[in-house]
Formats: sequence, structure tokens, C-alpha cells
Amino acid sequence: MKYQVLKTEGRAKRAQMETVHGVIQTPVFMNVGTVGAIKGAVSTEDLERIGTQVELSNTYHLHVRPGDEVVKALGGLHKFMSWERPILTDSGGFQVFSLAGLRKIKEEGVTFQSHIDGHKIFMGPEESMQIQSNLGSTIAMAFDECPPALAERSYVQPSVDRTTRWLERCIKKINELNAREDTVNKEQLLFGINQGAVYADIRIEHAKRIAEFDLPGYAIGGLAVGESHEQMYYILDETVPFLPQDKPVYLMGVGTPANILEAVDRGVDFFDCVYPTRNGRHAHMYTGHGKINLMNAQYERDDRPIEEGCQCPACRRYSRAYIRHLLKAKEMLGMRLGVLHNLYFYNHLMEEIRDALDQGRFAEYKKEKLAAMQGE
Amino acid sequence: MKYQVLKTEGRAKRAQMETVHGVIQTPVFMNVGTVGAIKGAVSTEDLERIGTQVELSNTYHLHVRPGDEVVKALGGLHKFMSWERPILTDSGGFQVFSLAGLRKIKEEGVTFQSHIDGHKIFMGPEESMQIQSNLGSTIAMAFDECPPALAERSYVQPSVDRTTRWLERCIKKINELNAREDTVNKEQLLFGINQGAVYADIRIEHAKRIAEFDLPGYAIGGLAVGESHEQMYYILDETVPFLPQDKPVYLMGVGTPANILEAVDRGVDFFDCVYPTRNGRHAHMYTGHGKINLMNAQYERDDRPIEEGCQCPACRRYSRAYIRHLLKAKEMLGMRLGVLHNLYFYNHLMEEIRDALDQGRFAEYKKEKLAAMQGE
Repeated sequence: MKYQVLKTEGRAKRAQMETVHGVIQTPVFMNVGTVGAIKGAVSTEDLERIGTQVELSNTYHLHVRPGDEVVKALGGLHKFMSWERPILTDSGGFQVFSLAGLRKIKEEGVTFQSHIDGHKIFMGPEESMQIQSNLGSTIAMAFDECPPALAERSYVQPSVDRTTRWLERCIKKINELNAREDTVNKEQLLFGINQGAVYADIRIEHAKRIAEFDLPGYAIGGLAVGESHEQMYYILDETVPFLPQDKPVYLMGVGTPANILEAVDRGVDFFDCVYPTRNGRHAHMYTGHGKINLMNAQYERDDRPIEEGCQCPACRRYSRAYIRHLLKAKEMLGMRLGVLHNLYFYNHLMEEIRDALDQGRFAEYKKEKLAAMQGE
Repeated sequence: MKYQVLKTEGRAKRAQMETVHGVIQTPVFMNVGTVGAIKGAVSTEDLERIGTQVELSNTYHLHVRPGDEVVKALGGLHKFMSWERPILTDSGGFQVFSLAGLRKIKEEGVTFQSHIDGHKIFMGPEESMQIQSNLGSTIAMAFDECPPALAERSYVQPSVDRTTRWLERCIKKINELNAREDTVNKEQLLFGINQGAVYADIRIEHAKRIAEFDLPGYAIGGLAVGESHEQMYYILDETVPFLPQDKPVYLMGVGTPANILEAVDRGVDFFDCVYPTRNGRHAHMYTGHGKINLMNAQYERDDRPIEEGCQCPACRRYSRAYIRHLLKAKEMLGMRLGVLHNLYFYNHLMEEIRDALDQGRFAEYKKEKLAAMQGE
């Protein structure tokens, strides 16, 4: 792994990261394919056409179905889903805390119930690393606890301390797994995760602590979980400077185009979010002038593409009227075209951000973009 | 329109039909896109890749949503769905009799309730022609009544007589519409439909009667609606010889690969059926050795494509195990890949049939194919 900062503008970084699955140009938006596929019938072949650099899949979901051992037996997630470029897997932690049924947290890890059939599962740092190693992703995430945004200090501090201890166990385990003969990806990278809710001092102390482990990258977790945008930007302002500047920074689960522009400005490299896919399936389409809702009657006879000039597979060929009709008739193709457009929009936004950084005009670009999108 | 028989073998015909939207090589299987899209998130771009020659859309469905006048305002169905090759629209008759709520048949036409919101609709020969003209399909179908397979003679004979009178009105109306300045496709072709349930004598008399109108093509309707395969083949044996030999013959709503092989042998040119799309969405995949059900546990770790050597977009890239996983997780991509494979299978089967006819070895091909597919 080689991470190289090519250019900076204020705290914003333009960088590239070399991995065994190819080079990632950052800032980058990862496209979320929860169970090893992007929702909306989007294939990996489609992803190649819309400029996707990194696909993100969910450890918890793949563990419960089809099972990470099945994926390993089939040669790992890259081969399973026919995707050669980088894949990042989350640790499962977020889903354990947000999706799963009754759970019990102990020092060893978490016992919880599968959201599919209710059966009892135990997941701790070692289990998460084992599953992610079986999947063979390019980047594995450390197993952490993601406390609620509005959790009390008295809950957050011990939780963060445990997350640090869990990180040490993750590092030990991944090193052991990467050294094994039958491991799918022996170069699997581990990113640590900063937590601390909205308490800047806890965040900063934790950032300093995990920076000591000299990991290939660091994420900021536990944001975009209910706090305000201003609180999120404040935490980024306070925390990012204490993460290593020569390592990529990943802001988990974020966000709107505006969130991304603001976070890039604060030094973030990696993003992921379900907004473009979820919105695309529900007729909410991103454009350079803000979101439009294709369900509105005004688009019934509108023969223009979702966005004039857009080079996505939906806009190159189909009209607002047609896609609206498909969505109203609940035809899957409508959802697919919506998702393709929105993912292309996000991927293209990141390309524009990288170009602006390359040319030293990010501040200007950000200002213009936010104004055109009416703050979205 | 120019229909040319290139080769015959027994009653089987290898032909081509020139239309304003391009040449159709027959025997051909039309791919069903009910509401102007193939179910399973398959785009017209996908159809081009799997060798689809003719897309079939349903008049009734497009009339109720988005409305044929909307489609006309947008330049017709070809432009609406971005498909340049031939489109055949059915007359709406079959859906009126199978889908719609309470209906009343009179000499003028049929009054029935929309299956979407229950509002009253009247459709007769003139309305069906008007709607199909608004859609601007390449081939329009005559408005007919499709009596149940097991209907009594005493019901069928007067129904068929009325269908003949309706055909005369369809011809008058389409000629009038094709002559209008603002018609989407002034070269729209009309196919007549033979009815008569399983009564060979009624079928034959009707075939002779409608043959007199010298239409660009003829369909056999009211089969594959509950009678046995043997009854269907018997009706084809008896009826096809009384339809013009220098015109294409279309067997509506048929069928399995075996049905198609048997019907080609009896002189049929055109086919359509929802089997490949419906089966594809439900994990039933066609192969040269019969259908397989991907939901079966035996495919959980099967890294082979659905069918070895298949050149469809699903088989070229994805494994049985992956598609099975997607279908089990109810990911739309699983349905899309299943539909793409099955439609490619059907389109490819027709290509093989045409090649066999070209080379004068259809009888042999049919025998081998039926044996390999175990009669499916």
C-alpha cells in the first residue's frame, strides 16, 4: 500500500492510494453494495461504466447470507461478484448496533440475533477480522462500537476505550490472518476507526491514541447518525488534524453532496453513503441544480434526460417521462436507471472535486457548486 | 412490407420480413415488455446485446398507464422506450378478457374496469386501432375475442363471427389512421387473428375467411390458454395450411422451447411468451439440458455459469452461486441476470432453428434438441 498526497488546498487533500486491486484516486465516493450487489439491479459491469472506483460491501450481511465461508470457498468477494477493483468491507459493528435484535456487549464482543432468522451470533474483533479475511476485501475496517449520536459522556468514554482495546485485537488478528497460506488477500489493509460521538476532547484523545498504531488508514465513525450537520463539521474541524496527514481519512456513511464538499474541505479522502442508491430507487434524482422528484406530474411528458449533458447510461438514452412511467408502474428498470444516474452523479462529482484540487481551485468550485445545488 | 420465404423444410418456413423498423429474420421469438420495458430491470440497451429482434408491448397496459396519448406526444413507443427495431403491440383484447374486472361484450366492443383503479373503459376495434396507432408500433394486432379454451361450440361460433366483423372494422380504421398526417407510423401493419378454440372446423372456416382480407400477416390466438399440448399441435396441423403461405404466421403466447420447435415444424414464424422472463425472475433457468432451479442447495458453491459456453451477459461473468445468492437475498440484480440469460437462451434457440432451416437439417436439429432438453 502506498498513499501519496498529490496536492493540498487548505486542509483539502488530493491523493492516490495504490492497492493490490488497483489505484484509488481520492477524494473518492465508494458505491454501496450491501450484500455483494448494488441495490437496483446494477451489475458490476454497470459499475465499470459509471466510473466506480471502490465498491463497499457489508460484513454482517454477507456473514449471515450467503456466509463468508461460502464466499471464501468461491475465491473471495472479488471473484464472487466479478469485480476486480478495490472493495472495502465494514466491520459489521454498525449493523450489529443498528440492525440486529437484542444484543449484549461485553469486553469479548457482542452477542446478538440475526435480523433474518433470529439465531444467536457472537461477533468480536477476531470474528470480524476472520469474516473480512474470508471475504478478501482490499480494505477491512476495525471492529468498533458506534454509540448513539446523543449518548452521554459517561457512556461514550468507556465505549471508546473498549474500541481502542478492540482495535489492538483487530491488528493482532489481521496480521495473523494475512500470514496464513490459504488467505484470500494476504495484503488486506486495516483501517482504524475514530469514535467519541460529539465530544471533541474524547475524539481528539482517541485520534491521537489510534494514530500511534500506524495503520494504512483511519476512519471517522459515529457521525451522520443523528447529530446536526454543524456538529459534524465541528467534529471534523477538531478531529481530522489529529489523524496522520500521510494516511487516508474515511468519513463513514456520509453523505449529501454538500456534506462531501464540506468534508473534503476538512481533509477527508473516502466517503460512502446509501443516499444515491436509495434516492434513485425512490425517484429522487440528483442534478447540478438540486434534487428533482420524477414522480411530479410536471415530468409526465418531459422528453429531456434527467440532466442535460449527463453522460450516465440513463441520461444518454432515456427521458424523464419514460423513467417516471417505469417508476410509477413499479418496473424495476425505473429503479435501475435512477440508481445508475445518481451513482454516476456522485462519482462524477468526485471527479470534478479531484480536478478542482488538481488545478488549485477547489474553494471556488465548492462555492459555485453549493450555490448551484441550493445547498443540497 | 415485404415477406420472403427463403427456405422450407416440410411445413417449416425460414423467412424474412422487411419493415420500416428493420428486417425480421424468422422464425423469431418476440421479447415481452408489457408496459414498455422487460420485467427484471432489463433495458433496451440490454436487449440489443442479447439479440432481440422484436419487442412486444401490451396495448391495454400502455393505454391505462402512462396513456397512449402521452406516448404519442413523446413521439411514439419506439422513441419513448429508446428502441429502434420492430415492436409488435397486441390488441388489448386478451388483457380485457383475462385481466380486467367486470366486463360486458356487445357488438360495438367491450366495456370493462381498469385493473389499476377500477374506472370504466370502453374498447372496440376502432379504439384498439387508435391506441396502437398512437403507440406507433411496427405491427398492430386486430381486436378479437379470445374465448376460453374449454368454451362450448355454441359460445365459440358466434364469438368467432363477431371477431371477423371486428377485423373488418379494424382494417377500415387502420387504413384511415395510416392516411392521417400526424400518425406516428404511417406504415403500421395489421395482423389478423384466427380464433375457434379447439374446434378444427371453426378454425379452418375462420382461417379461410380472414385470409381473404390479404393482410400482411396472421396470428393464431386462443391457444396455450388451458388446452393440452397435443390439442394445440392438432389445431396447428389443421389450421396453418389454410392461412396464406406467403404471409407470416404468429402463434400468440407460445411457449416452451419444445412448443416452439413443434410449432415451427407446423409452419409458424412468430412467437411470444412470458415464460423466459417470468421463469428468470423465479430462479428457473433454461439450459440445453432442461431447466434448472438455482434455488436448489446444490448450486450454493457452484462457480460455473448457468450454462457452460453460453455467451449471455449473465454467463459471461457471473456464477450460479452468485446469482443464487442474489435471488435468495431478493436482490433485483439476481432477477435481471436470470431474465437476461433466459431471453438470450430463447433468442439463441431461434437463431439455431434458423441456421438448421438454412442448412436443411431442421428435422434432425429438432429431434436432437428435444432429446437433450428432455422434452422441455
